[in-house]
Amino acid sequence: MRAAIFRNGEIVADSLPEPSPAAGQVLVRTLACGICGSDLHARKHAHRMVELSRHFPGRKPMDLARDVVFGHEFACEILDYGPATQRRLKPGTRVCSLPALLTPEGPQGIGYSNDNLGGYAERMLLSEALLLEVPNGLAAEHAALTEPLAVGIHAVAKAGIRGDEVPLVIGCGPVGLAVIAALRLRGLHPIVAADYSPARRALARRLGADIVVDPARSQPYATWAEHAAMSAEQKAARPPLQALLPALKPALIFECVGIPGLLQQVFEGAPRDARIVVVGVCMETDRCEPMLGIVKELNVQYVLGYTPEEFAASLRLIAEGEVEASALVTARVGIDGVAQAFSDLANPEAHTKIIVEPWR
Amino acid sequence: MRAAIFRNGEIVADSLPEPSPAAGQVLVRTLACGICGSDLHARKHAHRMVELSRHFPGRKPMDLARDVVFGHEFACEILDYGPATQRRLKPGTRVCSLPALLTPEGPQGIGYSNDNLGGYAERMLLSEALLLEVPNGLAAEHAALTEPLAVGIHAVAKAGIRGDEVPLVIGCGPVGLAVIAALRLRGLHPIVAADYSPARRALARRLGADIVVDPARSQPYATWAEHAAMSAEQKAARPPLQALLPALKPALIFECVGIPGLLQQVFEGAPRDARIVVVGVCMETDRCEPMLGIVKELNVQYVLGYTPEEFAASLRLIAEGEVEASALVTARVGIDGVAQAFSDLANPEAHTKIIVEPWR
Repeated sequence: MRAAIFRNGEIVADSLPEPSPAAGQVLVRTLACGICGSDLHARKHAHRMVELSRHFPGRKPMDLARDVVFGHEFACEILDYGPATQRRLKPGTRVCSLPALLTPEGPQGIGYSNDNLGGYAERMLLSEALLLEVPNGLAAEHAALTEPLAVGIHAVAKAGIRGDEVPLVIGCGPVGLAVIAALRLRGLHPIVAADYSPARRALARRLGADIVVDPARSQPYATWAEHAAMSAEQKAARPPLQALLPALKPALIFECVGIPGLLQQVFEGAPRDARIVVVGVCMETDRCEPMLGIVKELNVQYVLGYTPEEFAASLRLIAEGEVEASALVTARVGIDGVAQAFSDLANPEAHTKIIVEPWR
Repeated sequence: MRAAIFRNGEIVADSLPEPSPAAGQVLVRTLACGICGSDLHARKHAHRMVELSRHFPGRKPMDLARDVVFGHEFACEILDYGPATQRRLKPGTRVCSLPALLTPEGPQGIGYSNDNLGGYAERMLLSEALLLEVPNGLAAEHAALTEPLAVGIHAVAKAGIRGDEVPLVIGCGPVGLAVIAALRLRGLHPIVAADYSPARRALARRLGADIVVDPARSQPYATWAEHAAMSAEQKAARPPLQALLPALKPALIFECVGIPGLLQQVFEGAPRDARIVVVGVCMETDRCEPMLGIVKELNVQYVLGYTPEEFAASLRLIAEGEVEASALVTARVGIDGVAQAFSDLANPEAHTKIIVEPWR
């Protein structure tokens, strides 16, 4: 079968042996698989990723001398079952799964593994126990957005929202957009979002942002503050010694960029007592000024991934039209187009989410 | 009057004009004033401190070309009242106050200010509205420990304790010891604490640590894990996909050292989902690996200072013998001894808290 393979630091299209389902496993045909920012990161910082895998207890790190097939945002169709399976869903059923395979050595990741093929291949293996049926009528390319939406759902869940916060989303790539969608579902308003790209700002509005900011034209934190003023009652209820501080509602800032220096920028701009959720994945060493965090008593919550429940909820939300997932898809490519798609994703005006359709 | 003055980057003993109380102010005699780690930092990183004052809205930064009298952990005796005062407390009454002066321009700090003398001077000015009477019989040098204890009380309050955490305190200087005392008051056990100094570890035990670790001999996080094992019921209640993670109670780590690289060490050692409270004041630029925070979904709460309520509670706790404050005091010096005391505090075996008694 054909696959887009990460080999010697590059993405190449080549043939691979057909996978064969082991006990508890299902052979599936990949219908659609999103290209994630983490895949772009992984191509650039693969050694770093290997080094970091030691922090996932029980996870086998990638051997970069061997082939890896990326792709962890997939929707598939059941082809065949391996031994020791229940076979509740018929072949032909369309399914999603969180990107993990249950093995005798514990759960192993799909997508950054030498052993477990990701979705940039015509066929792959899933664990029967993790299958979620795609509701009838939902396009595979939209079902494939379950994973990135789950990242936003999880980030917002970890933010410990009380209801009085005014959120600010820094960066409106797929991660920031998923956070915006999840914030809208939580009913938090106004949602302020910042991105340099006009196309991304338009998408942010479409997914639920009330106010969008171009950081090249105005300071996102100043715009945030304009929309976060306390009510007269809230102002009056403050303790006397706080009366001289700016009368602002609690800030909840989502860092959805993930490059060095960004968190430091957030520390500079954030108001006192802000809570910062780090959703962007910065794989490089970063520099920071802890005193900024200290004098403002900032809180930083780093997040990663999602729970199985959040993953299942995301698929449901897309299927029920609660999140306009279709807005994110900007192109579809076959196996041979994956390498070019990795380059094309550098331009936020042109692309948000490119879907790999290995059957093309 | 005599004072130990921060002048041209050094601490010098010299004479200053007598202060005179303005409206709402009280002239007091300084009975006892603790030397804080922040004072040592401030001597070394004064320019940095000035630069950071811009983040305190309304606070006037220090002019380093002019004299500054440090000292923000003080207990005093009322000498005389300025105009527009209520005079509820008689002259001779012993008082504490949080280190701020209410001025027409808003609250201004005491201790890092050209205008407001700190406690390393024979006499100083306080705001009548902020005075707290020292309960009868409490020694001034113990009342002076109200401020550093309040730092620990505040840090523990900001930690959002739910009751199932096992705390780990990194660094048992005055800040770490205050955190340990505050944790003991919250009834959290076991309290694990780490410090290289045997004297500090002994103090940590005295203030409430159940387990002390010498990081030169064993890894604090490994010792913590030995004492944080989940009960059989807690283990059984975990969701299936978590069953392969180490079965540990929630980690609550207090970083009480405040030097570059320390938070990174905590990131390295911390278990998944740990909450980290940064109480140590690191004034220098720091380096960090955000990926460690991300893969472990760490939470970092930076804290500073305390509320007026926490300050008042600390004085009460010391007066009622709930915290054995006397254990912290290792020496007493007069004005002429302050410069030497700054050097002596470098040795944790010899000293914890040195009290300045300007009347000596």
